[in-house]
Amino acid sequence: MPADQLSSVFGALADPTRRAILAQLTDGDRSVAELSAPFPVSQPAISRHLKVLEGAGLISRSRRATARLSHLEAEPLREATAWLARYQAYWDESYDRLDALLAALKRTQADEQSPIE
Amino acid sequence: MPADQLSSVFGALADPTRRAILAQLTDGDRSVAELSAPFPVSQPAISRHLKVLEGAGLISRSRRATARLSHLEAEPLREATAWLARYQAYWDESYDRLDALLAALKRTQADEQSPIE
Repeated sequence: MPADQLSSVFGALADPTRRAILAQLTDGDRSVAELSAPFPVSQPAISRHLKVLEGAGLISRSRRATARLSHLEAEPLREATAWLARYQAYWDESYDRLDALLAALKRTQADEQSPIE
Repeated sequence: MPADQLSSVFGALADPTRRAILAQLTDGDRSVAELSAPFPVSQPAISRHLKVLEGAGLISRSRRATARLSHLEAEPLREATAWLARYQAYWDESYDRLDALLAALKRTQADEQSPIE
């Protein structure tokens, strides 16, 4: 995946309506009318979101009679996940720091509760 | 993490310079001057990128003498990864379809190569 497609994928995911559309498509292909139903936005607004998702390679579109169906293309999400996975060591580190902080707090509390000799 | 922070995180990642800045910060905290060095862009442009990253919670900033240092905060990337992980079944499915296609191709080739009886 070229670097720019990765930017397009992250850009496409940077919107709650577009993320919700992808979630809907996990249940199967959907028309614009079906995808618009749960949202308080117009079908043209949903169509614009679909264009962004299609541009990022996250959906493909086909025709069924007069309806255009959107189909989830999850492969680019694998690449996005692979990019993020490189940072796992660093978020684990922040957990380690939190663990150390909690352990230090516990020691302090234990010290405070121990009787003065 | 509220839904809007997830949008901010994905939005912050939707730029190759910002992703490269995060990569630089895995080696330790950096000043704006240090972060600007590898890029053909001005320090003010890098500062704007840092503001976007800070707004998404992906970096924090502190002072060392006269320099402002940026520090990687990887925790929001964990949340972004958790969101993406829900789609793993769907990208695996596209691999399964590819496997099925390759198997079908192999069978076709085997049929073509078998002698006519």
